[in-house]
Formats: sequence, C-alpha cells, structure tokens
Amino acid sequence: MRKEFWQEDFEVLGKNDLKKLQVERLNATIEHAARSPYYKTLFQQKNIHKGDIKDIAQIRDLPFTTKQDLRENFPYGFLTLPKKEIIRLHSSSGTTGNPTVIFHNRHDLNSWANLMARSLFCAGIRDTDVFQNICGYGLFTGGLGFQYGIETLGALSIPAGAGNSLRQIKLMQDYGTTAAHAIPSYLGRLYEVFQSAGLDPKKDTKLKTLVIGAEPHTDEQRKRIEEMFGVRAFNSFGLSEMNGPGVAFECEYQNGLHIWEDAYVVEIVNPDTLEPVPDGEYGELVMTTLDRQSMPLIRYRTRDITRIIPGKCECGRTHRRIDRITGRSDDMFIIKGCNVFPMQIEGVLMKIPEVGSDYLITLVTLNGTDEMVVEVEVKKEWFKGDIRRLDNLTKMITAQIRDEVLAKPIVKLVEPGYIPKSEGKAVRVVDNRVNGVTKENISCS
Amino acid sequence: MRKEFWQEDFEVLGKNDLKKLQVERLNATIEHAARSPYYKTLFQQKNIHKGDIKDIAQIRDLPFTTKQDLRENFPYGFLTLPKKEIIRLHSSSGTTGNPTVIFHNRHDLNSWANLMARSLFCAGIRDTDVFQNICGYGLFTGGLGFQYGIETLGALSIPAGAGNSLRQIKLMQDYGTTAAHAIPSYLGRLYEVFQSAGLDPKKDTKLKTLVIGAEPHTDEQRKRIEEMFGVRAFNSFGLSEMNGPGVAFECEYQNGLHIWEDAYVVEIVNPDTLEPVPDGEYGELVMTTLDRQSMPLIRYRTRDITRIIPGKCECGRTHRRIDRITGRSDDMFIIKGCNVFPMQIEGVLMKIPEVGSDYLITLVTLNGTDEMVVEVEVKKEWFKGDIRRLDNLTKMITAQIRDEVLAKPIVKLVEPGYIPKSEGKAVRVVDNRVNGVTKENISCS
Ligand SMILES: [Zn+2]
Ligand SMILES: [Zn+2]
Repeated sequence: MRKEFWQEDFEVLGKNDLKKLQVERLNATIEHAARSPYYKTLFQQKNIHKGDIKDIAQIRDLPFTTKQDLRENFPYGFLTLPKKEIIRLHSSSGTTGNPTVIFHNRHDLNSWANLMARSLFCAGIRDTDVFQNICGYGLFTGGLGFQYGIETLGALSIPAGAGNSLRQIKLMQDYGTTAAHAIPSYLGRLYEVFQSAGLDPKKDTKLKTLVIGAEPHTDEQRKRIEEMFGVRAFNSFGLSEMNGPGVAFECEYQNGLHIWEDAYVVEIVNPDTLEPVPDGEYGELVMTTLDRQSMPLIRYRTRDITRIIPGKCECGRTHRRIDRITGRSDDMFIIKGCNVFPMQIEGVLMKIPEVGSDYLITLVTLNGTDEMVVEVEVKKEWFKGDIRRLDNLTKMITAQIRDEVLAKPIVKLVEPGYIPKSEGKAVRVVDNRVNGVTKENISCS
Repeated sequence: MRKEFWQEDFEVLGKNDLKKLQVERLNATIEHAARSPYYKTLFQQKNIHKGDIKDIAQIRDLPFTTKQDLRENFPYGFLTLPKKEIIRLHSSSGTTGNPTVIFHNRHDLNSWANLMARSLFCAGIRDTDVFQNICGYGLFTGGLGFQYGIETLGALSIPAGAGNSLRQIKLMQDYGTTAAHAIPSYLGRLYEVFQSAGLDPKKDTKLKTLVIGAEPHTDEQRKRIEEMFGVRAFNSFGLSEMNGPGVAFECEYQNGLHIWEDAYVVEIVNPDTLEPVPDGEYGELVMTTLDRQSMPLIRYRTRDITRIIPGKCECGRTHRRIDRITGRSDDMFIIKGCNVFPMQIEGVLMKIPEVGSDYLITLVTLNGTDEMVVEVEVKKEWFKGDIRRLDNLTKMITAQIRDEVLAKPIVKLVEPGYIPKSEGKAVRVVDNRVNGVTKENISCS
C-alpha cells in the first residue's frame, strides 16, 4: 500500500533539507521575537540578531527561556504584535503566582490546526472518521486544539466535552463514533460505565482508534486500553506553551512520537548541566517554536523528561521520534553520578509480572556512600514456596534497574501493603542522604 | 460619522434586491434539500421542484418542518451530503426521546462564523476588543458559535467557558476584557461575586459591551445589567436548528434584533391557523435556511413567539428586526377569540412601578362566558392610604393589558406573598374553563 501523508512536502523531508528549513525559520523567529519587550532586551544584551544562525547547531548559542521568565513578564512581555492582531489566548489557571498565557494570531491558529490535522492523519484518522472529542473545552488547549484539527482534517467532529459517561456512550452509538480523544484515566472509568450498562465497547460501538494524552501513562496502560475498547490507542503529546496538542504524535507503528521538526527545534539536555545528551539518552525536552508569530519561544525548557528514539521509522516520516514522557525534570535525582528519573525505575518494575502496584525509592548514606534502596511490593502468591525464587527475582530486578539507570540499586522485596499509602499523589522518592540533594519526598506521577 | 458594516454588500441591500437574493437562494436550498431522504420523499409527494419559487411569497406553498419531524428522522433523515463531507455536528441532550442533531460541512461552518462576526460587529464589537466568552463549549452551540465568530471578526477571544466567577473576574482584569458574552441570569451572580470581592465592575474592569442571550429576559433586566456593569448590553438570538447564535442581533440602536434575511427567510405565523400575521403582531417565528448545504430546513417552526418591528432602523441595515422573544407558542392560549401569550401580560405588568414580582393568570368560565382573571401582586406601600389609588391602578392595568392582548381581563390586586410560589419554573397560567383549552398549569419562562 502506498504510504499516505497529510503534507508529504514537509513530513518526509531529507535531513539536510529539514535543517535548512529550520535555519531559515529560526532566523525568522529571531526577527519576530526581537519585537517582544522580553527578547528585545535580551537579544540586545547578548548581541543576538536575525541571520546569526547559519547552522541549526548554533541554536545552542541562544539563551534558554523558562516558565519563570513567562511568569515574570506576564502578560505582554513576550508579545510581538499589537493586541489588535491577536485573536485568541490560552491561559493557565494561575492558582499559584501569575498564570502563563500564550497569544495567537490567525497565522498561529492556522499553523496549529494544520499540525493537529497532520498528527491525527499520522495516527490513521481520515475524513471518513467520526471523531468524538471527550475533553474539556475553553482555556484548556485540548478542546479547541483537537476541534480545529479534526475540522481541518475533514473528519466529522463531535465536540462532546468532558464527563457525563452515559451521554458519551449514547453519542458513540447514535453517530457511529470511530475515533475519540480522551485522557487515559478517564477511559478506565468510561469502560466501567459501559460494563454497568451491560455494554461491550468492542461489540456495541464502531470505535477503532483512541487518541490518549495529556497525562503521563505507561505502555502497559495503553495496551490495557486497546484491549478494553478493541482499538488501537495512539499517544499524543503537547503543552500549552508550544500551542497545546499537535506537538508530537505516534504513527501507525506506535514506536515513539514524531515531533514536528519543521515547526519546532527539538533538543534534549541534561537538566543539571544544560548540555545536550546523545540520542537515546534521557534528558529534558527543550523546544523552540519555528512557525509562531505572536509569541515565539526560544529554547523553552519544558521540564518534560524524554529521549530521542534513535533510528528511522518505517512509516517514512523523517521527523525524529521522542519517547513517552517519563516524568518532570524536577523529579530527577543524582545517585552514584547518574541522573535518575523515578519513572525510569517504574517503567522497569511495571514490566515484571511478579511485581505488585507499589514501590518506594529511598536514598540513604551507608558508611559514607550514597545508596538507592528500592522497596518493591511483590504479589502475594510469590511469598509462598521456595525462598530461592525471591532471591532470583531480587537479582533480576537489580540487574534490570542497573541496566536502565546505570546505578546499582539495593532491591528489597516486600509484601503487598507494606509500603504506606499516601493521600493524593504517591510519594515515590524519599531522600535521607547526609550530603545528598536537599529535596525530600520527591514525588512523580 | 460614517456608518460601518461587516458586509455592506449584504447588510444594506434594498428590499427588492434582498428578495431577489432570497428567491435565488431558496431555489438552491430546495435543490440541496431534495438530496435528503426526508425532503426527497416530501417534495415528490407535494410535487415541489427547484425553480418553483419565482417570488419569495411563494414560500407559503412549501410545507412546514417541525421539531417532531427532526426527531422522527433522527439522525440522518435530513442530511443531504455523504458523512465524509460533514465536519461537525451539534446535538441536543435528548433527555426525552431522540435528540435533535444539526450537521455542518465546511461551507456551513464558514457561513455561520461569518454571520456571527457580522452580528458582533453590528453590536459595536471591533478587532480592537478583548472578548471573553463566558459560556459552555462542546455540543452547546454558544461556545463554539461565539468562538469562531470572535476569531472571524478578529477580536481577541478569551475562551473562558462557563462558571468559576472569581476566575472570570481575574481574566477580565488580567487581559483588560472590553466585551463579554454571558446568559443574563449568570451576570447577576457574577455581579454579586464582584461585590463580595470588594470590586466594582464599573471601575475595576474595562468592560464596555455585554452580549446577552440564550435565556428569555425583559428590557428591564437588560437595563439593570447595563447599570450594574456600566456597559451597553445587546440582545443575541439564535437556536441550534438555525446553527446557534448569530441568527438575529441588536445594533447600536438597541431597538429590536436584525434578523439576517440573506441567510434566512423569516415568517411570523399564527400558531393555530399557521397563517401569516401582519408586521407588528405577535406570532410564531418560522425560519428557512438560505445558506446551509448539509442540512437545510424549510419553514421550520421555532415555537418562539415574537413580532416583526415595523419601520426602518436608523443604523441603515435593511434586514428586518424581530422583537425580543416573549415566550413559546406552546404557552399561547385563546380567550375571547384573541391569541394571548403570557409574556405579553408580563411585559405590561413589569413596566408598572407599583407592581411587585408575581402575578397569576386564571382562565375561568363565569355565567357561560370565558374570562381571564389576572391577579397582580402590588408592592406593600401601596396597600396603605386612599383606596381610590388602588381602584385607579386596577383600571390602569386593565386598560393596558386590553391594549396589548385585545381581550379585557378581570384584574385583581393582591398583597405581596398572596400568590403561592412554585418550586422551579413559575406557574403563570391556570386554565379552569369549562370548555376551554384542555391545557392546565401552562407555564411560561
Ligand atoms: Zn512513524
Ligand atoms: Zn439597526
């Protein structure tokens, strides 16, 4: 079968052509950015001008931008255009301190809608699909982001909004919904409502595709969702500072998310040193907008931890793939000189069938040496019988964690219920080191 | 000052040119409609063809369409195009029986967005405004309807969504909101939140325009809102079967709502006889879409009661004006041969300063004659002093109601609290007639 693309001209660009386009667009972005009060001052201080960039690697000469910068220059410090030309804003709730706000002119909204349509097409959605957008609208970017993308693609959109599961099911049945977007945790609840209504989504709907995002989740969760609904589920990644959804998306091969490099320069850096890490290694995702006029952001530190998946994708798209988000850079700790993200360890543990649902990482100083103790709940049936089975399991987990994070842990198997449950977000890391990082009770989602 | 229009070519069309355009578009609409299963059969039965309409008055030869027809042919009976070409649906909640659903292709959504932009422009909104859309998104047409209209107009949209008053106020202050859309009852609550926060919307915001709709309300409510917020408030009318908002809108003269006659054929009919009523008389609004491809509706009975306001508007727009909606045709009763809508009587009463907040209409048979008894609560201070003042008030109210509805009522003044309060929607009409209409406890909003 011939491979299909939403924009073949952009999606299969050769490496050099893509870099050339990026250089061109980055210089234009610098020119736009220089019109905002924030970058104007910064560029003057650092002697940065449009045309400076001859090779995309030179992006490393540009300064980083952080969420803190956005907040301190709220609301108009990053705005490059007169308010008259802006036609939409999306704003965070700003429960603590200033909110962050992103402004869009017509070009920006069209560009976003196009990236979103490209993303949906990449996941196999076509204009023949009936697409139910199960997600909050309004200032949250998921609602309008998907809405404009579905319409641009030409599928039939059902702007269902969030919640009201019985109504969601009725909509699916009334209009023959074939594809839907929802957060992974909601899909579990929706499935229960299907069951209590005596319905099976596999038989009683025409669903074939789910798009899941906005919440970190594991590949195991994805597979469970695929089984429950009898669909293929595709991972969607976005953040409001980079528009919202439509930043990176899985293709039919479901082996990482193509991140649209004609619209963003993508870097992965060590969150401590801010130096680039090689492809394949985890670090903080840093992004630069290449096609936004109202509010370009340069080397924005997303705080999201991921890695570039090395190699080419079979789908033919040349834009590199990022791995699913494994946490926030704020959650990272350093042990034995290695940067470790709790989600890396969780990823290892959740693939082991004997492991139960809880674990706890404790950093301690033993005889002057910092150690990482990983307590792992093991399913009840494993505490019966031969003790050597437990020994073997301990060795296996130790080896797998060391392979993943490069630091050797002290693994302790414990019975289910041994690890204290916390209210709300689970506490995954406790730091009791004598001279360790001062962060205590680091939690990861 | 030169008068400004969003689309001068359409908005100030002379009467004959407008009729010519309507004839052309109505024939095209018949051609589109004939592709839907419902109208195909109906047109064959009634021998209706495109090109039949030579004069717009011939629309009376076409059959009516009712909500019942929509429900019975749910979901695809009115669809004229393959589902592949449809890019959005809006659907009612369908808590009782089948929902109603309206399908849109790209042309339909663009046409709707344009009418909405024209409506906002007509109410004085410009691309320099910051427009906060305080309204539910999703399947409810107010959210996306306004959103696309604001963006098409080029104002800065804040897709605020419904509820969370403190956040609404913060958004207004953070971004200098100059215009907003909300339902009238919410604006009363919002004002209270302003007050409890020690804020005055007149001084502490830049609001100058409010658009109010989706809920029937009186001109007195509008004036109260204008005073509370220090703004001008404009009435917006729409219904999902005719897209949603953007059907009819007030202009700067605030003397009725221009209904866009290049997009709709507007008729006012007697809901009993279905015969047209003269301009100025109340009746049921009947509408035919002229610019919708996916799902044209012919002579759709909206059930909304209004009238054409005779005469020309000073703004220069030639599209006729409808009066604010005064109720639903289902609320109408007939007394002494006159069609009466409870809201007509409410309209008279609410303009009289001595009248309190409640009234009750009871239809009775006295000595073989049907009579309309109107009990009216009068403010406490009026029950003191000279009884002749009450007699004069009774006579005055009687005369004013008769002038409005043409049937002479029996008016009884009562003290505040005399009329029993009902839970939920107020009961305004009780029918105790011997041979009267069988409807009992008719309520109007
Ligand atoms: Zn791929
Ligand atoms: Zn006017």
